[in-house]
Amino acid sequence: MSDKTRPGNFFEDFRIDQRIVHATPRTVTEGDVALYSALYGTRFAVNSSAVFAASIGLPRAPLDDMLAFHLVFGKTVPDVSLNAIANLGYAAGRFGVPLYSGDTVTSASTVIGLKQNKDGKTGVVYVRSVGVNQREEMVLDYCRWVMVRKKDFASPAPEPTVPALPDEVEAADLLVPENLHFERYDVGLAGSPHLWDDYEAGEKIDHVDAMTIEEAEHMTATRLYQNTAKVHFNQHAEKDGRFGRRIIYGGHIISLARSLSFNGLANAFKIVAINGGRHVAPTFAGDTVYAWSEVLSKIALPGRNDLGALRLRTVATKDCACADFPFNDGEGKFDPAVVLDFDYTVLMPRRAA
Amino acid sequence: MSDKTRPGNFFEDFRIDQRIVHATPRTVTEGDVALYSALYGTRFAVNSSAVFAASIGLPRAPLDDMLAFHLVFGKTVPDVSLNAIANLGYAAGRFGVPLYSGDTVTSASTVIGLKQNKDGKTGVVYVRSVGVNQREEMVLDYCRWVMVRKKDFASPAPEPTVPALPDEVEAADLLVPENLHFERYDVGLAGSPHLWDDYEAGEKIDHVDAMTIEEAEHMTATRLYQNTAKVHFNQHAEKDGRFGRRIIYGGHIISLARSLSFNGLANAFKIVAINGGRHVAPTFAGDTVYAWSEVLSKIALPGRNDLGALRLRTVATKDCACADFPFNDGEGKFDPAVVLDFDYTVLMPRRAA
Amino acid sequence: MSDKTRPGNFFEDFRIDQRIVHATPRTVTEGDVALYSALYGTRFAVNSSAVFAASIGLPRAPLDDMLAFHLVFGKTVPDVSLNAIANLGYAAGRFGVPLYSGDTVTSASTVIGLKQNKDGKTGVVYVRSVGVNQREEMVLDYCRWVMVRKKDFASPAPEPTVPALPDEVEAADLLVPENLHFERYDVGLAGSPHLWDDYEAGEKIDHVDAMTIEEAEHMTATRLYQNTAKVHFNQHAEKDGRFGRRIIYGGHIISLARSLSFNGLANAFKIVAINGGRHVAPTFAGDTVYAWSEVLSKIALPGRNDLGALRLRTVATKDCACADFPFNDGEGKFDPAVVLDFDYTVLMPRRAA
Repeated sequence: MSDKTRPGNFFEDFRIDQRIVHATPRTVTEGDVALYSALYGTRFAVNSSAVFAASIGLPRAPLDDMLAFHLVFGKTVPDVSLNAIANLGYAAGRFGVPLYSGDTVTSASTVIGLKQNKDGKTGVVYVRSVGVNQREEMVLDYCRWVMVRKKDFASPAPEPTVPALPDEVEAADLLVPENLHFERYDVGLAGSPHLWDDYEAGEKIDHVDAMTIEEAEHMTATRLYQNTAKVHFNQHAEKDGRFGRRIIYGGHIISLARSLSFNGLANAFKIVAINGGRHVAPTFAGDTVYAWSEVLSKIALPGRNDLGALRLRTVATKDCACADFPFNDGEGKFDPAVVLDFDYTVLMPRRAA
Repeated sequence: MSDKTRPGNFFEDFRIDQRIVHATPRTVTEGDVALYSALYGTRFAVNSSAVFAASIGLPRAPLDDMLAFHLVFGKTVPDVSLNAIANLGYAAGRFGVPLYSGDTVTSASTVIGLKQNKDGKTGVVYVRSVGVNQREEMVLDYCRWVMVRKKDFASPAPEPTVPALPDEVEAADLLVPENLHFERYDVGLAGSPHLWDDYEAGEKIDHVDAMTIEEAEHMTATRLYQNTAKVHFNQHAEKDGRFGRRIIYGGHIISLARSLSFNGLANAFKIVAINGGRHVAPTFAGDTVYAWSEVLSKIALPGRNDLGALRLRTVATKDCACADFPFNDGEGKFDPAVVLDFDYTVLMPRRAA
Repeated sequence: MSDKTRPGNFFEDFRIDQRIVHATPRTVTEGDVALYSALYGTRFAVNSSAVFAASIGLPRAPLDDMLAFHLVFGKTVPDVSLNAIANLGYAAGRFGVPLYSGDTVTSASTVIGLKQNKDGKTGVVYVRSVGVNQREEMVLDYCRWVMVRKKDFASPAPEPTVPALPDEVEAADLLVPENLHFERYDVGLAGSPHLWDDYEAGEKIDHVDAMTIEEAEHMTATRLYQNTAKVHFNQHAEKDGRFGRRIIYGGHIISLARSLSFNGLANAFKIVAINGGRHVAPTFAGDTVYAWSEVLSKIALPGRNDLGALRLRTVATKDCACADFPFNDGEGKFDPAVVLDFDYTVLMPRRAA
């Protein structure tokens, strides 16, 4: 048997402070952008139109932030989560410089926490992953933790290390792209008259629209991100697996929910932070995804009266319209229709003073 | 309940002469072109090859005209037809400057007719929609009419206004791209020896080939066009709808038929007009689309002996080969296999004198 | 009935030494590259990253070699194999200059062999097809042979001509792109520490990963290549055909297998030759493709100590993991799970002396 195949890392292969440079740098192109549009139907004007992007001071249309996320994330999979049982959470995610077609993304991760589970067969690995462009400028910096199998159950448990992760990225840490200005921002072309000033903390928005997912779509997306997790692709194996079916990459649901959120949040033109996130339940081909959002808080940005931030919770459901905002019972037990609880921060123009 | 979500316009929301600038400008790219190729398998040489396009005087390969149509059309959906029951017809469609990758399309519509139906619950809205590029040059100018729901049945009926729409775009109104020349036109590379001179009015052509449609394909196409009509995407709702299934965007069928028409009309390198069109029956995933065309008339173009136009009817069917040219009984009753009756005008090189 | 439709060539339409210039030149773009990535999930760094490609001396990221193959092949279908019953084999395939986005490919074929079958209803046609870019530089030069129907069984059999085709492209005929250098080659980014020096003739590698194919995916790919063979697209006809289903384009399986081979052959950055190939069994949507490879031989390249070649056999199976390397019984009878036996030559960097 050849030793040429990479088996991925098992729990016992990780060490605290270990740094992993992930394979396959990726030059992003207008082809990726078109595919992203075709997969999610996103309509945010800044990402859709070079002219609109220029009107707010950007050199041209940046890639959708979640596309940047998926590309950075995808590279980490062969090293971090190929032998994962579950993707447990995200925190401390900050988006840096926008990604433009022609840029080349690489990513690297550092192990920031390790905790073996009581069963002795699995453990939780915490990593901080950073994606950079070809100028080594930070594109995305985020933490996630995953439950990973041990290969050798007899291998010793590492000293438990659980990193302190913030509940929320602080306002002072949000990175606003350079040179943004909004005096020419056209709400008609953007698709909504509602600006930062018009939203209130606690406000809930049903995004109304919905999208049914096909196998070909989620696999196409997940391959585009060079995410190699087997459960998304191999029906021959999954038919005997836990669900009998291929499981959809959780990030696909985030992108669908973000795209659906256009109807209600059309001016939320950029994601600047991922505060937290949980894939509450798996999704499968044939599921129809709906979404609603709650404004968790309004964040004024230091030195700016033309731009604010909203901390949002966007909840995605399957096969369940969101007029009643299905969520949890307050004690953490989720409505069975809920598949995603995503806590993130967006930028939105303010009404001119 | 938040007021941030756009419900779309209902019949009583439209006013004669109302002008609506549609949201989400769109920069088209080579990514869109590749997806269009992959969705329809189109083979017209002018759209496929920059070198071929240059050989007839174009700066590079223009986008397929129907891709331009879908992009302009898609933008109108959230404002014009989100609450539509049926897309009733097209007329007076003229293509202007070709669209090239890098161009940014926006579109706006003017309400040119309103007529409430006798049931008091619906009405017909006529709009003229114009798509322009970033230089405000006209890309497409066309009329369509749709049946739209009233929200408030008690709202008063508007004064009925039905615009006079032509049966055919006149030869003098056809816009031929600048600088076209055909002395280097290579029929071998174009895929057919048959030029304008070789076609006769009344000639019928069975395009032979056929394409079965999958859910992932029509949804991918429709999202690419940023067309948000719910019936195409939400199986959870549509399972209880009129057909129990997602309905395929009618424009998807036009593009498939146009692509199939290559086999028989390979030199019809550009659509210049949409004279009329009717989606005779809905299509669904799993349907196999065939097509045939009839040359309705041959149109000489003023001042040109190197280029002519053909007015064509292309008929698409589902699950029915077209050797017998299925159509209607002459009294307007269509063969049950027919799904599309599309009347349009194309340009084709003439044989050198 | 119109004579405008092309019926494709039948066996009796071919003549020895006949040269056929194929229709529809094709400008390849970043859109094609993105789609190829999304269809196969390929991760070879040279094709994925402009920066990585530049690090080995290429001007930017070339297209995947198999994408070049499919584009050249696709053009030949309407003329060579529209009326084919079977694609019998490949030989003497050499890749020339890399294809880059912006290049325009055309292809032409020469008939190099003809042999009518004993049944009098079919015959084997051997063609040599050459794809070139817009500078007439050779991109791909290969031979294939197909079994084609006769239309008129009474037409006379041609003098049988069977070309002598090599079992293997010789080392001296392998074309290495200009200016390649490897002193900055980064095995970490490339995804594997294993270089040419580390492989041995006879070594077998199970690529472990697998991919289930959907109808929408193989049809999207095949349309992208402008391959028009009816059996891939028309379920309405195929339901009554030999298999009751659409047959997947064999090249789709080659690309999947090549993509899966990354796990074990990550540094095999370029295909330089196709020595032979056989589609052992048809594949259908729903099949899950696995692959394994054997190193058939190691080839030192004249004048180079930084780069070597490996002749590989990559075998693809359906619904069968490849830990046991399923193949044939030594007498040519294949394991029923095997669908592809592909013999090709790749370039791989050597360890610095």
